[in-house]
Amino acid sequence: MSTLTATADVISSDRVEGTSVYNTSGDKLGTIDDLMIDKVSGQVRYAVMEFGGFLGIGTDRYPVPWSMLKYDTGLDGYVVPLDKATLERAPRYTDDKMPAYDDAYNSSVNTYYGL
Amino acid sequence: MSTLTATADVISSDRVEGTSVYNTSGDKLGTIDDLMIDKVSGQVRYAVMEFGGFLGIGTDRYPVPWSMLKYDTGLDGYVVPLDKATLERAPRYTDDKMPAYDDAYNSSVNTYYGL
Repeated sequence: MSTLTATADVISSDRVEGTSVYNTSGDKLGTIDDLMIDKVSGQVRYAVMEFGGFLGIGTDRYPVPWSMLKYDTGLDGYVVPLDKATLERAPRYTDDKMPAYDDAYNSSVNTYYGL
Repeated sequence: MSTLTATADVISSDRVEGTSVYNTSGDKLGTIDDLMIDKVSGQVRYAVMEFGGFLGIGTDRYPVPWSMLKYDTGLDGYVVPLDKATLERAPRYTDDKMPAYDDAYNSSVNTYYGL
């Protein structure tokens, strides 16, 4: 099944979990844990990331607006233009306390990332 | 967590599996098993459905273009304008033989559904 990830333009939602995320220097920051998808349009709004390994900032989940992710075919993963200082203060939650993702929450996330 | 599905505009990819799919008469046809997502744009291209229960046409997976699904907030599920005869002849695969979802395959699916 790894050929799917390498060759196709689409990826199964089943396989998104674990897709790697890198910074613009090519260092691996962490992985995508989940996606938040607009029910009506089918557009992914947020990639929910885990950064625990590289940054040492715990196992919290970080929703990052999809528009900040760029897919890199060479890396077969996503690149985000975010540094550690930005991520350390970023909106986050623990896996057992997912927020409602209502307008107020979404606005706070978007505002944090300057969108 | 069920409040998330009921109130928010977004749904977690983790929770998409099992979302119900109905025909235009409101009969439950089956469920969404998986989503095929454009890696670059983040747009869902295909909902991969299972129709086994209601239609009695086995456990195959049926990729249906996302644009054919309409979300119904009352049903808290998706409605597709497809009848049994159309689905019986539709492109499908077994869960252990996922196609490559390359241009040729995607075109064949889209053509079948008149897109």
